[in-house]
Amino acid sequence: MVAHEQALKSLGEGGIPIGAAVVHLPSGKVLARGHNQRVQMNSNIRHGETDALENMGRVSEGVLRECAMFTTLSPCYMCSGTCVLYKIPLLVMAENDNFIGGEDLLAAKGVEIVNLRDPEITKMMRDWIASDVGQRVWNEDIGEMS
Amino acid sequence: MVAHEQALKSLGEGGIPIGAAVVHLPSGKVLARGHNQRVQMNSNIRHGETDALENMGRVSEGVLRECAMFTTLSPCYMCSGTCVLYKIPLLVMAENDNFIGGEDLLAAKGVEIVNLRDPEITKMMRDWIASDVGQRVWNEDIGEMS
Repeated sequence: MVAHEQALKSLGEGGIPIGAAVVHLPSGKVLARGHNQRVQMNSNIRHGETDALENMGRVSEGVLRECAMFTTLSPCYMCSGTCVLYKIPLLVMAENDNFIGGEDLLAAKGVEIVNLRDPEITKMMRDWIASDVGQRVWNEDIGEMS
Repeated sequence: MVAHEQALKSLGEGGIPIGAAVVHLPSGKVLARGHNQRVQMNSNIRHGETDALENMGRVSEGVLRECAMFTTLSPCYMCSGTCVLYKIPLLVMAENDNFIGGEDLLAAKGVEIVNLRDPEITKMMRDWIASDVGQRVWNEDIGEMS
């Protein structure tokens, strides 16, 4: 899974291990890949999903309406809102055991949600949150107090 | 108004004239300024609000809970979701005559909304949407088809 590879890439960079990919549904092509860049880019807005969209550059109107957003973790409200803005019809997450973001917003706006409940990715994220780096930066990423 | 200055700055760069500022409520200090960078940075995610947050760099947990987001236009779902993520308690917009974004989400999550109904900014945005550049890029910015 491309999003998983992106999460592992971020982990290898000392970052938050969340990855994402934008997949064009009619062709099955991966149009963009991204990973959380909070640590690497000192960023408040580069989550996996938004980083993937930023890596795409501007696309023709309508392309994102034919895409799925794949992500390793339930998308926060920023990323959920971004899917709603661009009318992305399908959100596939690897898991939501470690965090639940804006799933209520996605559902209310008609975005289909698929949860793969992937045990390997769930364990990776759980272990990272419990790690030294995770304890320092995870709450910052989800807007919570440490 | 700092957000208005930022909108005019973007307009002067050939960009979408939407600006924003993050203001620390206890001190009244402007902590960050930003403007829409779709055209300038070939960006899908740098709206006025998200650009301001990105320009801040990472901030201590809790700072954004004491801030207001000022913006020249009703925030889209991406930007509304970002305010919800970081628990920004107050959103001040100059107008929502030209676009209504995620105000329902903000209200549902307890974010206070103030609409200044500024006639000068409303006219600036309306004139820009009707301009040659506006007709080319405005729908792209709000996720609509041209």
